Amino acid sequence: MKRAVVLLSGGLDSATVLAAMTRDGFRCHTLSFNYGQRQKIELTRAAELARTLGAVEHREATIDLRAFGGSALTADIAVPKDRDENAISHGVPITYVPARNTIFLAHALAYAETLNACDIAIGVNAIDYSGYPDCRPEFIAAFETLANLATKAGTEGGARFTIHTPLQTLSKAGIVRLALELGVPVGRTLSCYDPSISGEPCAHCDACILRRKGFAEAGAVDR
Amino acid sequence: MKRAVVLLSGGLDSATVLAAMTRDGFRCHTLSFNYGQRQKIELTRAAELARTLGAVEHREATIDLRAFGGSALTADIAVPKDRDENAISHGVPITYVPARNTIFLAHALAYAETLNACDIAIGVNAIDYSGYPDCRPEFIAAFETLANLATKAGTEGGARFTIHTPLQTLSKAGIVRLALELGVPVGRTLSCYDPSISGEPCAHCDACILRRKGFAEAGAVDR
Repeated sequence: MKRAVVLLSGGLDSATVLAAMTRDGFRCHTLSFNYGQRQKIELTRAAELARTLGAVEHREATIDLRAFGGSALTADIAVPKDRDENAISHGVPITYVPARNTIFLAHALAYAETLNACDIAIGVNAIDYSGYPDCRPEFIAAFETLANLATKAGTEGGARFTIHTPLQTLSKAGIVRLALELGVPVGRTLSCYDPSISGEPCAHCDACILRRKGFAEAGAVDR
Repeated sequence: MKRAVVLLSGGLDSATVLAAMTRDGFRCHTLSFNYGQRQKIELTRAAELARTLGAVEHREATIDLRAFGGSALTADIAVPKDRDENAISHGVPITYVPARNTIFLAHALAYAETLNACDIAIGVNAIDYSGYPDCRPEFIAAFETLANLATKAGTEGGARFTIHTPLQTLSKAGIVRLALELGVPVGRTLSCYDPSISGEPCAHCDACILRRKGFAEAGAVDR
């Protein structure tokens, strides 16, 4: 069985990626980041989801994104609330963390290389990439090219790195359907940008609004 | 004056890059990494060199490379000593840290984006790239492409990121000559992979051997 490194945030999207990669026959090593999030509860949920969804190993890496500031997800900028869907899907949002997916994928690449794995999975999707530059397919393709030039594995011939994005073309409703089909415990995933310490979603940030819309469109109940 | 982010390790190469970027008219913001090095003295030297060479700001980011193991520079693998030059210049050395330059450049990109800078400099060179895959010109070119796809700046049009590698085509002797020409306090730089706590170079690792050869070929004295 091939090993894969799966980026796991504790949210619905990355949990669904983990379930999809497991379904596709990979032995999954999950990786979460402590990057100065507003609440640590998402890290607890990520570790729990890794166990529930059968990851063979879960690691948490600490990184210093906060040192660079610049985002409502890490700094003391307020998370925008109750924006309409049109506003959500246009322009780069203030919750954008500079170069976040580049940094996350770079760590995943280091981890994969030490495991002799050449498969990496990330939960970028059609909703994200309207707003976040580092969720677009052309960004992912560029990272895959980079990965094969950056590493010992890539250089010495043999394995080629693949960046898997099983959600890339899915809407939020499509992700909800896939999550339910794959048995993801959706009630234990946390999408909110501004949850309470105990993990209650705020219900008003962009992520909560998109999640609610996704469940509604999928005709499913979000427990 | 344009701002640039300069990766600064405390070694001769990156100090020379800082001096070269300053000469070229950039206001330099330097960035060092605490990544579980054998000795922290190189971080002290980096901060000192940033001041001496006129950086406008110096930051140190902590990253978790050690969590992934796999290198004599971070883990408890012995640093190879007294290898002959032929061995040094062939194959990927055990001092290779998985995906290190990808991770370093990803952080530099985050820092640059928060500064509204679109110039990043790194001290890769002709000696390194015979051994380290992530020092080759094609890796740097791929990262530049990635940077312009990864970021808000790149996406919203306007500035394009440039990765500067002023040492790319230089031999170690060429770097020594440039360093002396630009007034780098070479005696305060630390190239050794395995220094003492107080910063005395071991004189036997690949980095010490290449440095000695570089000074000899440049006809210079390494104080």
